[in-house]
Amino acid sequence: MMRSILLALALAMGFSLKATFELDQPSAQIQDRVVRLAELEIDPAQLENYKAALREEIEASIRLEPGVLTLYAVSVKDNPTQIRIFEIYVDADAYNAHLETPHFKKYKSSTQQMVKSLKLVETDPILLGAKAK
Amino acid sequence: MMRSILLALALAMGFSLKATFELDQPSAQIQDRVVRLAELEIDPAQLENYKAALREEIEASIRLEPGVLTLYAVSVKDNPTQIRIFEIYVDADAYNAHLETPHFKKYKSSTQQMVKSLKLVETDPILLGAKAK
Repeated sequence: MMRSILLALALAMGFSLKATFELDQPSAQIQDRVVRLAELEIDPAQLENYKAALREEIEASIRLEPGVLTLYAVSVKDNPTQIRIFEIYVDADAYNAHLETPHFKKYKSSTQQMVKSLKLVETDPILLGAKAK
Repeated sequence: MMRSILLALALAMGFSLKATFELDQPSAQIQDRVVRLAELEIDPAQLENYKAALREEIEASIRLEPGVLTLYAVSVKDNPTQIRIFEIYVDADAYNAHLETPHFKKYKSSTQQMVKSLKLVETDPILLGAKAK
């Protein structure tokens, strides 16, 4: 009995959860996505300043630019000067427009002396799975 | 005149775009997030089989598990046997539950011979910015 109730609950939850799969049903639009991983090393003495500048840049980009879909910034645990940013843009035009925005230019110039190295890893999406918001 | 219209349009767009910032207003719940980057190298001869198994695992995890928020899988351009997966779980319990699911166990055993190396990079989120779906 308890088992049946739990099973019913599990099924109900499974079917009611919303999910999005950007690449489950490939379309011309989704093929155009620019998906990239930025790998940075920051000067330890400037880490807090860098993170503040990065937060400001991400907040403005997501709020103001229709073509910027995702900017997920994290630091590596136990090695916090190593930063990773998972970036999704609608297409190459959106990415190029992003580079010309005042908030990006401000971020780039204000953090120039804080960034010890920057590697941009271009990628091809396999499947971008996320819960619907 | 044209300038005023463009400015009004830009402002309207800026204010109408929806955005989500998981860590803009830190709460106890959000502090609990498990955010991780998996770095894998796949046997070139088995790459297509691996990607099919990974897609199936991601689809099931997002659809069935309330605690799995994001599984973004990509391959490195010009080096497609290098896979990166950006993973967000609600908390450590959700992550541990994920490891015990039939779909994860199936993925793990079926891909065991395909994965040449696996590195799990634990991270601390700085800001997880995304457009609202």
